[in-house]
Amino acid sequence: MMTNKGFHVAVVGATGAVGQQMIRTLEERDFPIRQLTLLSSARSAGKTVSYKGEEIVVQEAKPESFEGVDIALFSAGGSVSKKFAPEAVKRGAIVVDNTSAYRMDEEVPLVVPEVNKEDLKNHKGIIANPNCSTIQMVAALEPIRQAYGLKKVLVSTYQAVSGAGKEAIDEMYNQTQEILDGKEIKPEILPVGGDKKHYQIAFNAIPQIDKFQDNGFTFEEMKMINETKKIMHMPELSVAATCVRLPVETGHSESVYFEVETQGLSAEDIKSKLSGAPGVVLQDQPEEQIYPMPADCVGKKEIFVGRVRKDLDEDTGFHMWVVADNLLKGAAWNSVQIAETLIDMEIVKEK
Amino acid sequence: MMTNKGFHVAVVGATGAVGQQMIRTLEERDFPIRQLTLLSSARSAGKTVSYKGEEIVVQEAKPESFEGVDIALFSAGGSVSKKFAPEAVKRGAIVVDNTSAYRMDEEVPLVVPEVNKEDLKNHKGIIANPNCSTIQMVAALEPIRQAYGLKKVLVSTYQAVSGAGKEAIDEMYNQTQEILDGKEIKPEILPVGGDKKHYQIAFNAIPQIDKFQDNGFTFEEMKMINETKKIMHMPELSVAATCVRLPVETGHSESVYFEVETQGLSAEDIKSKLSGAPGVVLQDQPEEQIYPMPADCVGKKEIFVGRVRKDLDEDTGFHMWVVADNLLKGAAWNSVQIAETLIDMEIVKEK
Repeated sequence: MMTNKGFHVAVVGATGAVGQQMIRTLEERDFPIRQLTLLSSARSAGKTVSYKGEEIVVQEAKPESFEGVDIALFSAGGSVSKKFAPEAVKRGAIVVDNTSAYRMDEEVPLVVPEVNKEDLKNHKGIIANPNCSTIQMVAALEPIRQAYGLKKVLVSTYQAVSGAGKEAIDEMYNQTQEILDGKEIKPEILPVGGDKKHYQIAFNAIPQIDKFQDNGFTFEEMKMINETKKIMHMPELSVAATCVRLPVETGHSESVYFEVETQGLSAEDIKSKLSGAPGVVLQDQPEEQIYPMPADCVGKKEIFVGRVRKDLDEDTGFHMWVVADNLLKGAAWNSVQIAETLIDMEIVKEK
Repeated sequence: MMTNKGFHVAVVGATGAVGQQMIRTLEERDFPIRQLTLLSSARSAGKTVSYKGEEIVVQEAKPESFEGVDIALFSAGGSVSKKFAPEAVKRGAIVVDNTSAYRMDEEVPLVVPEVNKEDLKNHKGIIANPNCSTIQMVAALEPIRQAYGLKKVLVSTYQAVSGAGKEAIDEMYNQTQEILDGKEIKPEILPVGGDKKHYQIAFNAIPQIDKFQDNGFTFEEMKMINETKKIMHMPELSVAATCVRLPVETGHSESVYFEVETQGLSAEDIKSKLSGAPGVVLQDQPEEQIYPMPADCVGKKEIFVGRVRKDLDEDTGFHMWVVADNLLKGAAWNSVQIAETLIDMEIVKEK
């Protein structure tokens, strides 16, 4: 792509749900792109994707595909990142990886720009994009932590099927129509494509996202717990999560209980820190029935917070409801935002 | 109804979602009924409802309707209960009221039989059936409280639309079909029939059930908080709730965090108390992806509990996922169960 200025950007997983959003976000942000390389598995190679009116042919990812690439955005599954991210780095690219492959690697910064962009300075070639449900929560908690400290976080999630990919979206809509038509359904994807059993998602709620660990928590829940501590640089923070999949296409919601260090605060104190915080929009007027909902957040880059209220028993405890587009702030936009921040901070420079 | 033995039972609100379930439950339980009187508003009077193969004409509720009635099951809204429950009591009936009208009245027992059936002895004519979301939570917490004590409860709910009545169910299904057909939708009922604004429920999650109080909590959330304390006789218990409506027809789910008094327990200790507890079914084998879901609980009277795990930071803290049919254990079955318990305990006797 086709100007002399800017960067050579590669998108790995260009035909997936998040990859598509990455390309749309690069376009919308008018990201400084000199050349755009779109990569995928052999299966999807040969498809074309439009970018700024031009049709680009998606190529099969190979080590050589990364020759000359400045910034590579990966979102094609952990095994693809494990295989190709080191190849991209070897060839001089900086990688922003949206899979879980490197998130807990001590050498790899795990970044939400509103929270810990300074960590980008320590990168060794790969930067990890956190899990979707983690990103929106830490970005909402950060302005509160800065002002009042943070001791404890308990979250129950209400997560959309698009986090499980395009096939999960199709399954939800097809299954919904089958149920409305009184037909028998045959779940094949959700809750987890690679797991043994599959359950109805239409008109249901499934308390499993990703597979189970031996401790009874799912990997998704452990991601929220461990990633939150890493991003906030708070290994001592108490965090627990229960993650639940809903029949919602896009937009994760979270019921978050948290305890701060400071005593005697009111809900207004918390709201005053959320209002105007980077990337956060406060939508909190119960008397007007104004609160965030997934159906309203789709296509938006911000994190929406409402239902802020003080716990009735614990002086330092508060509740809030956090909603964001899991494909944008939860994935594509946070990745592109990391890339923009790398440029702003002059960590990546034009060659 | 048409034997010489048993009781004269009245169902008030016989054509509503819960009233219908009450009649089905009386039938299924083979409740000892000598005569069955079905009552409703003037609007629904004249409809017929079948009971054990017989068509019964629904009559408009009037004070005189309760002459000779032994047990009156009310589920026609708080204002109907306020108007007619005292009339029924005056005529010698015992009232089991499924509305919120009398729940927090100090003179009125608020009963989940698995938890506090002894409170029935103190009735003064009216017994209140708790809120659906409260019932399933306290019944799951009670065996744990008995064994290990209870200090704190934090719940986030995932509630079905049938809790908002038949019109809400119709709205959800019609709206779902309209969205699948790409049509414009016009929400008119949910989240709260009597509130100012109405929102999309299909493929969405709405963090509002019932209207808002001045403290930022909804009435539904305050019901869970206050009713839990009253049923468990624990005014000092810390309880907080966030209540959310989902596009699920029937079956409330709850993500419950709780802290016990006893230190050093394991998740197995908690599960051992849930397993075999009255009215509770433990469904908790993560390695086999076995956990409760609303789609599986419909039509069942039990409370299903799974995802039991120990908090990773707080020694006395645990998490669980509680699911029940909100029209049955959450409403109709708990009411009929109260009536059965009144008979078992010989608080109501055949005349």
